[in-house]
Amino acid sequence: MELQVLLVAGTHGNEINGIWLWEQWEKLPFLINTHGIKTYKVIGNPEAKKAGKRYINNDLNRSFLEESFPLINSSNLEGIRANQLVQLYGNKGENPCQIALDFHTTTASMGSCLVVYGRRDSDLALAGLIQNKLGLPIYLHESDKKQTGFLVESWPCGIVIEIGPIGQGLLNSRIISQTKLILENFLEQIQDINNLNFIFPDKLIIHRHIKSIDFPRDEDDNINAYVHPLRQSKDWYTLKKNDELFYKFNGETIKYEENESYVPVFINEAAYMEKNIAMSFTKREILNFEDKWKRSLIELVHQR
Amino acid sequence: MELQVLLVAGTHGNEINGIWLWEQWEKLPFLINTHGIKTYKVIGNPEAKKAGKRYINNDLNRSFLEESFPLINSSNLEGIRANQLVQLYGNKGENPCQIALDFHTTTASMGSCLVVYGRRDSDLALAGLIQNKLGLPIYLHESDKKQTGFLVESWPCGIVIEIGPIGQGLLNSRIISQTKLILENFLEQIQDINNLNFIFPDKLIIHRHIKSIDFPRDEDDNINAYVHPLRQSKDWYTLKKNDELFYKFNGETIKYEENESYVPVFINEAAYMEKNIAMSFTKREILNFEDKWKRSLIELVHQR
Repeated sequence: MELQVLLVAGTHGNEINGIWLWEQWEKLPFLINTHGIKTYKVIGNPEAKKAGKRYINNDLNRSFLEESFPLINSSNLEGIRANQLVQLYGNKGENPCQIALDFHTTTASMGSCLVVYGRRDSDLALAGLIQNKLGLPIYLHESDKKQTGFLVESWPCGIVIEIGPIGQGLLNSRIISQTKLILENFLEQIQDINNLNFIFPDKLIIHRHIKSIDFPRDEDDNINAYVHPLRQSKDWYTLKKNDELFYKFNGETIKYEENESYVPVFINEAAYMEKNIAMSFTKREILNFEDKWKRSLIELVHQR
Repeated sequence: MELQVLLVAGTHGNEINGIWLWEQWEKLPFLINTHGIKTYKVIGNPEAKKAGKRYINNDLNRSFLEESFPLINSSNLEGIRANQLVQLYGNKGENPCQIALDFHTTTASMGSCLVVYGRRDSDLALAGLIQNKLGLPIYLHESDKKQTGFLVESWPCGIVIEIGPIGQGLLNSRIISQTKLILENFLEQIQDINNLNFIFPDKLIIHRHIKSIDFPRDEDDNINAYVHPLRQSKDWYTLKKNDELFYKFNGETIKYEENESYVPVFINEAAYMEKNIAMSFTKREILNFEDKWKRSLIELVHQR
């Protein structure tokens, strides 16, 4: 059986560039070069898209939790949708997909990057191929018990693509072009593996998730400081002790006081304010590319 | 009786920088120099703010329509709120204010600018004082029957301040600082008039609203082109015939084909997509500062 890839846009309804690209692609099938790979493209959360919101009841990209399947009788729209997507496109679903690519945008100045959840062999292999080709940074999200239930975790191999900065609900030429570029590169790499024509890199540069920090808050739990102007849009720039983090309107600067040099990401992502996340800290690490990662991805692609 | 000024932030619930500044100001009264002017600061649409949305039922800043007062029995939240604000702070309200300043943000790269609705003498005089001091462009919104019912029109004198670019729901140091700067300058100018200590400019540079244009759409009325990369963020730059306007993903560029050179504003304002506005065209004009404008503002301030 042929390998099939699930392509998701609009997992968050107000991240509209991927949705728009999927709609255009629907009308103009030659628009995207799929490199011969069989794909299913879906809008993750069409109800939220209609409402112009990130989600209706719950964040869909936190709703893919083992324990919550099946949820058909739930009144939670996103729980139902998560279940439906797995039934339709899961590895054992009606249209079985082995790889899922989930396209997001962020209001943070992250540029384009890949997000990998945990250290699944095939994810790391696929992310490595893209990093080798396009040079994108990889945010390795792990050991974060507050943030679970990501869509791509429900597929054998799955990666999130984050592109920013762009405000919610805004159509933008740069974001659309980058979405297309990265998508086509992914499909090209997968096809190369299909054709046993690939070169894996020796190293993988990752930014490993350490922790997230909240905005400073007053006694009533209201945010009372914003991201310092010297920190705004400085995603991926290493923090050193005493660097400026937040600024209070009374003139007080709140500094970075850790001895360890972390690299901040998702600085001032609008959607994370409700999650009490002002930014996340990562540690830049270089991993040796492991043979088992390659084998895992090759087997996934060829055991069809 | 003392002159009173109404200061509104959060007329749109997802424009949060002004709201945040008002909240900080509430706790730290010395934060803003009001130059001795008596002010009332309100959150325009607190329900929409709670929901993280521009509005609940209708755009509050299109709800101040003569024919819709009173609306107490309406089920339209914004109609009720508009009525309430006029009853509380209108010129004949419980806490009569003669001047209203309404602070907004935009996702368009407009920088900071003033918006004046129609050609009321005192509005033009006050905008002129600020333009003379800070050099801000003035968008003169008039002759647009599709866009009516703006908040400031319900006060004898009222001006909108637009600051961008900033995504919806994002707290940003630059936007907050500019809001504070412009607010304090307005209050300083009003106090100067109060003290009969003012210099009006000779000229007023305005950008007069001509019309708004929609995104190109397909036969199903879906947007099928986005703002051309060469036009994105080029608010206030004069358009010449054959300049690029929109780009279709099939490679087609849609050009500006008017013979008249207009100046585009509100290019890609996220909230205007639902209003079928991709950008608005204005004409830059230099008006002689009229004596009756000055007299009107001076009389408004002194007839307390």
